[in-house]
Amino acid sequence: MVQWARFRSNDGRGGFGIFEETQIVEYEGDLFDSPRPAGRTIPMNACTLRSPCAPSKMVALWNNFHALAAKLAKQAPAHPLFLLKPGTSVIGPGDPIRRPAGYKGKIAFEGELGIVIGRRCKDVPAYEAESCIFGYTCVNDVTAAEVLNENPDFAQWCRSKGYDTFGCLGPVIATDLDWPSARVVTKVDGTERQNYPLSDMIIPPAELVSLVSHDMTLLAGDVIACGTSLGVGSIKDGATVEIEIDGIGALTNMLAPPR
Amino acid sequence: MVQWARFRSNDGRGGFGIFEETQIVEYEGDLFDSPRPAGRTIPMNACTLRSPCAPSKMVALWNNFHALAAKLAKQAPAHPLFLLKPGTSVIGPGDPIRRPAGYKGKIAFEGELGIVIGRRCKDVPAYEAESCIFGYTCVNDVTAAEVLNENPDFAQWCRSKGYDTFGCLGPVIATDLDWPSARVVTKVDGTERQNYPLSDMIIPPAELVSLVSHDMTLLAGDVIACGTSLGVGSIKDGATVEIEIDGIGALTNMLAPPR
Repeated sequence: MVQWARFRSNDGRGGFGIFEETQIVEYEGDLFDSPRPAGRTIPMNACTLRSPCAPSKMVALWNNFHALAAKLAKQAPAHPLFLLKPGTSVIGPGDPIRRPAGYKGKIAFEGELGIVIGRRCKDVPAYEAESCIFGYTCVNDVTAAEVLNENPDFAQWCRSKGYDTFGCLGPVIATDLDWPSARVVTKVDGTERQNYPLSDMIIPPAELVSLVSHDMTLLAGDVIACGTSLGVGSIKDGATVEIEIDGIGALTNMLAPPR
Repeated sequence: MVQWARFRSNDGRGGFGIFEETQIVEYEGDLFDSPRPAGRTIPMNACTLRSPCAPSKMVALWNNFHALAAKLAKQAPAHPLFLLKPGTSVIGPGDPIRRPAGYKGKIAFEGELGIVIGRRCKDVPAYEAESCIFGYTCVNDVTAAEVLNENPDFAQWCRSKGYDTFGCLGPVIATDLDWPSARVVTKVDGTERQNYPLSDMIIPPAELVSLVSHDMTLLAGDVIACGTSLGVGSIKDGATVEIEIDGIGALTNMLAPPR
């Protein structure tokens, strides 16, 4: 397994490479198209991690875990149920989640597994879908909970989940993740709030990629957020949310106090 | 008023410029950032128009015309109600609309005014929003009608409207359009199906830009589709849909027969 990360150096240079705890082994070119070793490393204390990719869109699943479906008394869907989060919603590890201007309501966290697409794909058969997956990252699918059902005629999925900073990704992209044996653990200010097995997923990653690719062309770097399970809740201004998945690491973001 | 178009020349070169019926006066650089005259023209018979911009996302409004709200017996919304169509859904004038693989249901057309954003903007006050509008284009907001409510628990707005080729834009971007005096006229195989005044809009363009920019950062080239009004319906394979708005021209796309 390899862990890819994007960084910004303390002197403002952007780059990417293989994450090795205390340093990043730098690469050049396109992460998704035969990147080349740059022949240098950067120590972690000389840089900050950014979101490990810059998706053109995030496809965010609803109702994709058996335990949550049972709690909500919803049928397991036959096809992925999703909304889109725009690329402008994406932030990386350590970046602050910002409360939308004027919104005083609840802000919810959702810890999720994110699939990072490795190449442009469309109408991919199930048996080929695995080859379209570059790797996996952690997602915090943030929601302005009171916007979602503010209007009685129209559930505002894209608006409530599409605000800038509401798509937290990172810290790295792990390739060849043994996702069926991993758990998503979400902590708020250090207290565990979610701890669910990815093996409880209704539509698993390769099938998700195949099915969603029948709905739209997926591009390299696009992210499919696999949906969350039990334990979602809201966070107060100043709270820190940590989403940890074995083999990927922990994605930490604070809900910034209002400016 | 100026009409901007993007083209591909018959020998495969891409470009953009000012559309003048029989020719395009070519420009260079960034359409949205001080483009420079290229000092040449290309005749229309030597090129094909492409979508006049390549949005990172389309923000597509629901319930934004009084006449349609009255027919549906819905309250006029206080804030724009929208879904997102991905950039991969966009096609230009003359490009075929493609039926999704395996989908045999109804495909609906919706003729709409599209706002083209001219610069990156976020939390724009109403009085500044006009300056963020580069111009206007015609939109056919295509929908796989039977996908929308296929699942009883989740209205699939992004999926039913997000398929590749379901975001038709063009033929040009008209700057300084006198939109309140214009009408949207939609014809299917030459028969008029929609003819509604843009003055019936509930939340007008500048206010839309201001309000949506409070929900997400808008980027240059992004499109806000203002929603449709009375007369939407479905089209058969092989049917041609024409959306015409005074001052912009006619956007024509055929629903291609299954391959």
